[in-house]
Amino acid sequence: MTDPAGGSSRKLLILNGPNLNLLGTREPHIYGADTLADVEKLAADAAEARGLTVECFQSNHEGALIDAVHAARGTAAGIVINPGGYTHTSVALRDALSGVDLPVVEVHISNVHRREEFRHHSYISGIAEAVIAGAGISGYRFAIELLADRL
Amino acid sequence: MTDPAGGSSRKLLILNGPNLNLLGTREPHIYGADTLADVEKLAADAAEARGLTVECFQSNHEGALIDAVHAARGTAAGIVINPGGYTHTSVALRDALSGVDLPVVEVHISNVHRREEFRHHSYISGIAEAVIAGAGISGYRFAIELLADRL
Amino acid sequence: MTDPAGGSSRKLLILNGPNLNLLGTREPHIYGADTLADVEKLAADAAEARGLTVECFQSNHEGALIDAVHAARGTAAGIVINPGGYTHTSVALRDALSGVDLPVVEVHISNVHRREEFRHHSYISGIAEAVIAGAGISGYRFAIELLADRL
Amino acid sequence: MTDPAGGSSRKLLILNGPNLNLLGTREPHIYGADTLADVEKLAADAAEARGLTVECFQSNHEGALIDAVHAARGTAAGIVINPGGYTHTSVALRDALSGVDLPVVEVHISNVHRREEFRHHSYISGIAEAVIAGAGISGYRFAIELLADRL
Amino acid sequence: MTDPAGGSSRKLLILNGPNLNLLGTREPHIYGADTLADVEKLAADAAEARGLTVECFQSNHEGALIDAVHAARGTAAGIVINPGGYTHTSVALRDALSGVDLPVVEVHISNVHRREEFRHHSYISGIAEAVIAGAGISGYRFAIELLADRL
Amino acid sequence: MTDPAGGSSRKLLILNGPNLNLLGTREPHIYGADTLADVEKLAADAAEARGLTVECFQSNHEGALIDAVHAARGTAAGIVINPGGYTHTSVALRDALSGVDLPVVEVHISNVHRREEFRHHSYISGIAEAVIAGAGISGYRFAIELLADRL
Amino acid sequence: MTDPAGGSSRKLLILNGPNLNLLGTREPHIYGADTLADVEKLAADAAEARGLTVECFQSNHEGALIDAVHAARGTAAGIVINPGGYTHTSVALRDALSGVDLPVVEVHISNVHRREEFRHHSYISGIAEAVIAGAGISGYRFAIELLADRL
Amino acid sequence: MTDPAGGSSRKLLILNGPNLNLLGTREPHIYGADTLADVEKLAADAAEARGLTVECFQSNHEGALIDAVHAARGTAAGIVINPGGYTHTSVALRDALSGVDLPVVEVHISNVHRREEFRHHSYISGIAEAVIAGAGISGYRFAIELLADRL
Amino acid sequence: MTDPAGGSSRKLLILNGPNLNLLGTREPHIYGADTLADVEKLAADAAEARGLTVECFQSNHEGALIDAVHAARGTAAGIVINPGGYTHTSVALRDALSGVDLPVVEVHISNVHRREEFRHHSYISGIAEAVIAGAGISGYRFAIELLADRL
Amino acid sequence: MTDPAGGSSRKLLILNGPNLNLLGTREPHIYGADTLADVEKLAADAAEARGLTVECFQSNHEGALIDAVHAARGTAAGIVINPGGYTHTSVALRDALSGVDLPVVEVHISNVHRREEFRHHSYISGIAEAVIAGAGISGYRFAIELLADRL
Amino acid sequence: MTDPAGGSSRKLLILNGPNLNLLGTREPHIYGADTLADVEKLAADAAEARGLTVECFQSNHEGALIDAVHAARGTAAGIVINPGGYTHTSVALRDALSGVDLPVVEVHISNVHRREEFRHHSYISGIAEAVIAGAGISGYRFAIELLADRL
Amino acid sequence: MTDPAGGSSRKLLILNGPNLNLLGTREPHIYGADTLADVEKLAADAAEARGLTVECFQSNHEGALIDAVHAARGTAAGIVINPGGYTHTSVALRDALSGVDLPVVEVHISNVHRREEFRHHSYISGIAEAVIAGAGISGYRFAIELLADRL
Repeated sequence: MTDPAGGSSRKLLILNGPNLNLLGTREPHIYGADTLADVEKLAADAAEARGLTVECFQSNHEGALIDAVHAARGTAAGIVINPGGYTHTSVALRDALSGVDLPVVEVHISNVHRREEFRHHSYISGIAEAVIAGAGISGYRFAIELLADRL
Repeated sequence: MTDPAGGSSRKLLILNGPNLNLLGTREPHIYGADTLADVEKLAADAAEARGLTVECFQSNHEGALIDAVHAARGTAAGIVINPGGYTHTSVALRDALSGVDLPVVEVHISNVHRREEFRHHSYISGIAEAVIAGAGISGYRFAIELLADRL
Repeated sequence: MTDPAGGSSRKLLILNGPNLNLLGTREPHIYGADTLADVEKLAADAAEARGLTVECFQSNHEGALIDAVHAARGTAAGIVINPGGYTHTSVALRDALSGVDLPVVEVHISNVHRREEFRHHSYISGIAEAVIAGAGISGYRFAIELLADRL
Repeated sequence: MTDPAGGSSRKLLILNGPNLNLLGTREPHIYGADTLADVEKLAADAAEARGLTVECFQSNHEGALIDAVHAARGTAAGIVINPGGYTHTSVALRDALSGVDLPVVEVHISNVHRREEFRHHSYISGIAEAVIAGAGISGYRFAIELLADRL
Repeated sequence: MTDPAGGSSRKLLILNGPNLNLLGTREPHIYGADTLADVEKLAADAAEARGLTVECFQSNHEGALIDAVHAARGTAAGIVINPGGYTHTSVALRDALSGVDLPVVEVHISNVHRREEFRHHSYISGIAEAVIAGAGISGYRFAIELLADRL
Repeated sequence: MTDPAGGSSRKLLILNGPNLNLLGTREPHIYGADTLADVEKLAADAAEARGLTVECFQSNHEGALIDAVHAARGTAAGIVINPGGYTHTSVALRDALSGVDLPVVEVHISNVHRREEFRHHSYISGIAEAVIAGAGISGYRFAIELLADRL
Repeated sequence: MTDPAGGSSRKLLILNGPNLNLLGTREPHIYGADTLADVEKLAADAAEARGLTVECFQSNHEGALIDAVHAARGTAAGIVINPGGYTHTSVALRDALSGVDLPVVEVHISNVHRREEFRHHSYISGIAEAVIAGAGISGYRFAIELLADRL
Repeated sequence: MTDPAGGSSRKLLILNGPNLNLLGTREPHIYGADTLADVEKLAADAAEARGLTVECFQSNHEGALIDAVHAARGTAAGIVINPGGYTHTSVALRDALSGVDLPVVEVHISNVHRREEFRHHSYISGIAEAVIAGAGISGYRFAIELLADRL
Repeated sequence: MTDPAGGSSRKLLILNGPNLNLLGTREPHIYGADTLADVEKLAADAAEARGLTVECFQSNHEGALIDAVHAARGTAAGIVINPGGYTHTSVALRDALSGVDLPVVEVHISNVHRREEFRHHSYISGIAEAVIAGAGISGYRFAIELLADRL
Repeated sequence: MTDPAGGSSRKLLILNGPNLNLLGTREPHIYGADTLADVEKLAADAAEARGLTVECFQSNHEGALIDAVHAARGTAAGIVINPGGYTHTSVALRDALSGVDLPVVEVHISNVHRREEFRHHSYISGIAEAVIAGAGISGYRFAIELLADRL
Repeated sequence: MTDPAGGSSRKLLILNGPNLNLLGTREPHIYGADTLADVEKLAADAAEARGLTVECFQSNHEGALIDAVHAARGTAAGIVINPGGYTHTSVALRDALSGVDLPVVEVHISNVHRREEFRHHSYISGIAEAVIAGAGISGYRFAIELLADRL
Repeated sequence: MTDPAGGSSRKLLILNGPNLNLLGTREPHIYGADTLADVEKLAADAAEARGLTVECFQSNHEGALIDAVHAARGTAAGIVINPGGYTHTSVALRDALSGVDLPVVEVHISNVHRREEFRHHSYISGIAEAVIAGAGISGYRFAIELLADRL
């Protein structure tokens, strides 16, 4: 998790949770051919267009995601998070996000509300600024623009 | 509800539900100073930037919103809807939206997931392409861009 | 909503709720090619065969349906209603139906019990004489015959 | 359970569940004076009018009803069932009905939705073509006509 | 199921449901050494002391119990029933009991309220005159005395 | 909806929801012989006694009630509302009432807590100053006196 | 609990439950400066204006409140009760109120529906004539006037 | 609460909860003409027939009932309790009963399972030996006989 | 239900519930082409390989299954049961299985956890040694091997 | 309930609810041999060590506990309460505790979370500073030290 | 996590979740004396008997288990998983398993359905081929044989 | 995680879960200025006063916490755990704690019962000796004293 870009006031943390490392190679008829690298490229471009930088991190480990959130304190100006399956089960991640004093936007590539009942509840939404679901990888761009507007 | 712009293949219906006519004049410390006219201007601009036009309609009447959805068949290429309070109670509006063969994006200005429990369930999300909540009036712009990408 | 046929003692109100105006043109592989006009023709024929007349009304507006129910007091002998999406959400429509002293039969073209969970509860069934679901547009004919038997 | 009438393509199984043998002799002020024999006569007449025959069977035994459903495979063209109290409790009967490849119509003489809460859920409705409740014994006639239309 | 004793006005039906045939031989440290024969002897004695006779029937078959309830119409003056496991699952048995015009007392040898949660609800209690649980086989005697008092 | 009386600081909006137009002519053994006109007369008298005027509006249309609430902004000093069936189903009406900056008193002629379970929850009570149920049409008078005290 | 005023036909019991003795001295910014003595004075005045007398009793003891309800049989013509915290938990108090043959009006000073979820259910409302919540201490006056109208 | 009869090994505590002091004078068409005195006489007679004595106590006060249960330790051999409305709400009474090392039989004059939903759950049943509901005042006699058998 | 093989210590009861007689002929694309006879042959072979014999019984009658369980006392050393639809509804069958002192293994051919919600609860699992679901007819073999290991 | 020690600023109210008077004599294998007197001695010692005094009160009467809470206003600096069975059922006690402006610590001798489901909810915890469960009688000491720290 | 055995088409991943490293040393009276090493040996033997190899991995870390599932893509032919406590809480693990295109068999050593309520729901079962619970460590063998059959 | 102090019989494991590393630097107006280092110093001092030592470990990783619990077997005499957000979601951590044969005390700095509904349930409490919530960092000291008393 390196941060080549610098000052916290202009950097966004782009956080991807469990299984998002498989993006593009898993069920491409559903999720499309974009990979996690594409998402991170898209995020970097969207940020750059607004004079921001991004730091990207993906992990399948709940604890590692929490560590990354903690590390963002004092180094980032906002967080875009796709919490994957931890969306529905992680109070600890919610607490981490609400514990650092940064605006958070929650992104889901698919529209979770059209899927299983257990995906309709999010522990993260209750502490996020905004929630974007079903917009595909464009959701990351919208989230970055939104944070840019509010910074 | 006039449609000065023309052909269905390039027009989006921007639908605002109950109480959104009060926007900007109601609790501005929460919702900001933007009015419904500002939202509709923003939508028109966002659409124009993508070579699209918009037709805007607001009503406090569930039936009028359903009528407007029906009228979009054959005249519009997609629907952006902020269903207001009908989000949580209207099966009829859901059925109207799923009955016309158009992509739908659901927008909420505030993050409904941070509000009362009864606002956490949406009858619309189950048939929408995407759901954007808490992005303020930028949510309309994101929704239009998303539909533009998919057309 | 005109009533060419006359006396209340032999007239039935055929009430169709939201989205039923789209019948026949919406998802014909599911609902068949019959239109609302076909339904109303079928109803008129079924009534005539039993020496009755019908008055038909469709609206997407909950309030307009309630107004129509009220208007049936003193002019109709019974009500056949397909409440569409209001089936599951309208206490007001239920109250209107129980407030006028007329027998009511509830009809659904599809078998609502095979669809989403939220379609399994009806506010109307609790005050209807009978409920017919899944019989296609024949359900209207059965309802009319049933009311004819009971008049 | 004899089948005097013949070929499966034109025969309907009329199945009555527990306590329906008491029909007409139990609480006649509620259920009327019609007996199970009357129901079966009505069914035979309704079928004959459409060029169909019926085979009638009533039992208080869940297993016997399942056996009868199984026996209908290859000998009947459709099933009309009033599952009585097993409506609300029998997964086994549901499985039998869905296991044989025949259209099923569920009939209840009274409107179960106006009765105790536990009568509002049916294990059968989820696999039936149609559900008719509260139409009295005419419900059997409607069910037969519906199956006749669809054969 | 013979009835040596005669007139309905003085005979009680003693009905035992599934698994009660094992009484006395199953887990005697819990249920004691009394067998079903002992229960039926106790019932006969208790009835005789009040100038009544009993007819006893046990079955593991829900349908057979329903048949026995039906047969009691016109031949018995009341019913004592220990529905065993059908207590919690049989709407059909409830309907049979409420369908015959006889007073019913529900008996359980053990206190079902101290056992699994699913044993706390009885479909029978809602139509019984009285419910006696946990009194061991004396519960049958109490039930008979109660019916004798009320005849 | 005319307002003969004038200035907003002394005018109350008396809002009656669906089916209240039938008052007095529907089930008089329950609701008494008072009509909606009587209610509005009573309200006018009660207001006049306190130096207030009333503007009365009844509609069966949810949207029309919302429109009327909006119109009260800047013209009325408080709202007395009997939301009828919309009490239990309308988030949109709740939002309208909380969106205009006026004190609201909710009135029900009957004691809704003695009726069906679904009438025990009100979306309106959560944003009302006070709730009066079961006081008959006197409830309107109490509501007006309460608002008069608080103005 | 003496009754200086006399005949039961013209006396009302004003019953205040737990913690209402603290009124006026507890959180005055919420409940105002009125004390229980003020409430009882207001009640006496309101009753006198209608030719009635009151007997006032407050207790923190559920049993004492029940005793007081019992004592009202034959000595009072109606009961105004603010059950305080027992509203939500006391079946025994409900039974006492329904056991004496007197009209009951339930009063809450605050609007309980705007408070914690557990305050939204009342065991008393199901047997009361009317329920008044959120009208402050004026609620007692309204209750007395209502009982006076109905005597 | 004196105990004229003597030794704990042969005395039963007969405990009646709230509102049972009104027995016989309240709704006699439901509960019959028997008074609490009759119940206590019946209990004394039933006990005497088995060589036992009784000590009877009734209170509307939950705490007084608990005190009485405590007092039974070392002075009584068993407890018959009709907890009235506290059946459904009193964990404290349950704890008192389970805290003293005595067999308990729970009695209800009416069949609570045929009444409101909230009467279907008892905190007492989970620690009682037996539960008798709906047997009228004979339930006390059955309870005493049961305890006599088990002493 | 004959038992040619002999001694209880080495015999297993293989019990198949409702609709399993249709195996192989019902929806073969789901359940495969294996028939009940194939299952019973597989079971006999699996048992023989371990020096055991089997007795096989299938019924659609809940009571007949209970009778068969009872008959296994003293004649069998363990029970393999596929309770079919009774899995989710039969307390009586559960009680029978727990009443005979034999190890029980519950088998389902399909993975019931991937099917309707109501199939996720089993009354049998709570008293079984083991539960095998989704292993196809091999599940019977595994169950037999497991019982063989434990005998 | 005397207060020998004096000034409110240094006195704590130690409140014990129903059945705690039996402590030490009831099920000593569970609760140990310590009596209520021992608890009160321990509390006095713990308080004295911190320069505080205690006033101890135990009652089985909900109302008496509420009275004691009220009496603490102006005379005590904090409250340690073991509400016993009222923990789970008393809104009135909660209201009393929140009504007096004093810090409250809730103590349970056993770990209520390991016991019956109904003991997992406490009406008191929602208004207490701290909750200590399962620490045996040391819980009282911890509570006193905590209040001492905060005074 | 080395894979000495080779080709993915013949290798199975044996995955053990949290606390299974303690197997054999924890509560041996319940789980027996078999250790995790014994389980892995059993698995290797069972696989070898079918011409398969195994790769075994155990972790207490949810993320490490997900990583291992991902690593199985392209290297293994199927997965046997005992998810331990993550069974009931991990959507992320479920998503990982459904994201890799491999058959999964879920194994539990004990019969989770006889344990606490929260162990009755599994997030894994909904995407597994089969579920085996309560078969002890033989469950692993059955799972391997099942996968071998299906490869 | 080194253990300088030695023998298991006198060492306690002090375990802090996710986000507790931020203590003192996060929202100090709520949690105070004490840091995790302060907590661990307090714990060491409290242990030393009782002749015990502590080993402290904090992690945001569920798996790391489980590993630490396992490591305590044979090296520690008891565990004090503040599970943070894992309190409400981790069955695996519960299983780890119950799997090692050590007494556990659960500590929460804030009173979780005054916070969001989802914080009211703890998977840990069901296997802990004691639970202390809301006592601030003193809760750790109480927990240590309690364990010291019981060793």
